[in-house]
Amino acid sequence: MTLRPAAEIGMLLAEVDTPCLMLDLDAFERNLQRLPKSLRGKAIRLRPHAKSHKCPEIALRQIALGAVGVCVQKVSEAAVLVSGGIKDVLITNEVVGAPKVKLLAELNRQAHVAVCADDAVNVAALDAAARATGVTLDVLVEIDVGAGRCGVQPGAPAVALAQQIAASGSLRFAGLQAYQGSAQHMRRVDARRAAITRAVELVRTTTQLLGEAGIPCNYVTGAGTGSYMFEAGSSVYHELQAGSYIFMDADYARNEWTESGIPKFEHSLFVWTTVMSAPSLQRVVVDAGLKASSIDSGMPGVADYADVEYVKASDEHGVLQISGATRFKVGDKLKLIPGHCDPTVNLYDSYVCMRNGRVEALWPISARGALL
Amino acid sequence: MTLRPAAEIGMLLAEVDTPCLMLDLDAFERNLQRLPKSLRGKAIRLRPHAKSHKCPEIALRQIALGAVGVCVQKVSEAAVLVSGGIKDVLITNEVVGAPKVKLLAELNRQAHVAVCADDAVNVAALDAAARATGVTLDVLVEIDVGAGRCGVQPGAPAVALAQQIAASGSLRFAGLQAYQGSAQHMRRVDARRAAITRAVELVRTTTQLLGEAGIPCNYVTGAGTGSYMFEAGSSVYHELQAGSYIFMDADYARNEWTESGIPKFEHSLFVWTTVMSAPSLQRVVVDAGLKASSIDSGMPGVADYADVEYVKASDEHGVLQISGATRFKVGDKLKLIPGHCDPTVNLYDSYVCMRNGRVEALWPISARGALL
Repeated sequence: MTLRPAAEIGMLLAEVDTPCLMLDLDAFERNLQRLPKSLRGKAIRLRPHAKSHKCPEIALRQIALGAVGVCVQKVSEAAVLVSGGIKDVLITNEVVGAPKVKLLAELNRQAHVAVCADDAVNVAALDAAARATGVTLDVLVEIDVGAGRCGVQPGAPAVALAQQIAASGSLRFAGLQAYQGSAQHMRRVDARRAAITRAVELVRTTTQLLGEAGIPCNYVTGAGTGSYMFEAGSSVYHELQAGSYIFMDADYARNEWTESGIPKFEHSLFVWTTVMSAPSLQRVVVDAGLKASSIDSGMPGVADYADVEYVKASDEHGVLQISGATRFKVGDKLKLIPGHCDPTVNLYDSYVCMRNGRVEALWPISARGALL
Repeated sequence: MTLRPAAEIGMLLAEVDTPCLMLDLDAFERNLQRLPKSLRGKAIRLRPHAKSHKCPEIALRQIALGAVGVCVQKVSEAAVLVSGGIKDVLITNEVVGAPKVKLLAELNRQAHVAVCADDAVNVAALDAAARATGVTLDVLVEIDVGAGRCGVQPGAPAVALAQQIAASGSLRFAGLQAYQGSAQHMRRVDARRAAITRAVELVRTTTQLLGEAGIPCNYVTGAGTGSYMFEAGSSVYHELQAGSYIFMDADYARNEWTESGIPKFEHSLFVWTTVMSAPSLQRVVVDAGLKASSIDSGMPGVADYADVEYVKASDEHGVLQISGATRFKVGDKLKLIPGHCDPTVNLYDSYVCMRNGRVEALWPISARGALL
């Protein structure tokens, strides 16, 4: 059974059912242009992260504005985007296990799909699958530049893995992934700048060692919405992976942006919700709980009402506390700003795209649930 | 484009791709039987909550073991379950807004779908929709018995709303919903018992007032997996809404169960995951992050390895810390115990049902994403 959609094209805002994921197209399009504009004159490429939006419609718009392709985290996401017409995809992650590695190789018959690696046994598996499929696979060495997640250590361990890749018959050493994920939500600009300065030093050391080993490295990729201008100005990064800039969630908005040189993006993504219970003047309940807006990075914000706070989420309910003169009655609708855009997008099957108070389009979130 | 499934029927456990949602059928079936068994000899009905599983296959099994029907939170979930063959559904929630109220009335042509209310204007809308559709709608008054979420206050406000319902031509006053949601995860047994004792007093006061007003109340529903034996023994509740008992997540497992009279259910629901990076002996990264296992109620547990802890989740990664002798290499697979079953289930399209080390069935999570 197919679920009834929350909206139809042409509907007025007030007619759109709740909860649904709403995209303010004007704000979204300004964000979409603002990031590439901020890079003008800099010798750096943009490859936005599609793990945030999971939507070929959006990927195609990013590419139309100059992006060289997109990033994803999962080979199943890559399959959806290739199927949606994207010809150049970087999986900014390790791909492990026979069915996934096989799919990765097969996708390279249709498009350019590069991958990261941080393990010698995995590199051998990638090589075997590429050979069996008759393709040459681009593999980047992921180095840990401070995030403490995946990646080999910078320097000698990275060089050793690059040598293995370069010596593999069906692989090509494509470069380095150096993503400092834990820098993105450091609240203070100087903390983010300092974290990226350290990452840049680790990249520089590694590329020097690679050069000395006879393996030139012409491709370093990393960065996110919180730090990208620092990588862009570093002279060691070649590509940026920012993703959230198109939506600007409540968690990113809590960052300090002053004098960072990074434009402050606008909130364009909202959860449209209805007041479903009004037990008191100071406390009402909306129909968007944690199955409608992920709370991993804090509660959603409340748009348009400075005196209203979303204070508690359960599965299907959100409790709003009202400190001022705002009054809601059952049936009133309002916009929430997701705490964290990526996992919130992953809860929905489509974006309800609004312009001038009407539904202009419904864009399928084709890679929703693409976990493999 | 349809996403490739993680498993096929007949596969061995080791062949199942990751991350996926895995159901241990033996443990699940023991849980499924353990709750109704614990109620034997008690004059109380079971109507399990389907918001946890969102799956007609499971609802039908619960009904086969004596459940009178199921509960849901959303009218869109009710539509999926009715479509899956369930004839008796209670929406344990308010249904607000014209398209939802219309669907609710229409569903009553196919099945018995009752609803809760806590607002006079909403009751009028329910009556109008039922009349327009030519059905009689069963409406329960929800009272707030301590959870501080939806519901009118017990006593006089509940009686007033019940009178309005009873006086509505196309509605029938069906009873009271008195769910003490905030009691379910109180860690200590005596705290849960005390919270339900207070709820029972509020129900008793309200049903007495209803009787005095000439509105007999023969149906009081509430309770969850953490407290249900207290409601069952109260003599004022008629139906229990427990849902999580079939899965038993990590958060419920942190409750104290000793001497509560409530059976301790088994973990039957797991996220099957692969070690995708092994940066050190004490720290590895798995491919199940917060898009694979909701962290709203804490990190997932790690099954089978007492010296391994899941310490950090990002969108597509989970960091495991190893304090003992366990060693993982890239490609190893293991089971996580979801922190909170309901929002985790909502991330997947199907259960991979395992028995004796093989995939026995794939059950679609038909109401995944049913938010309206």
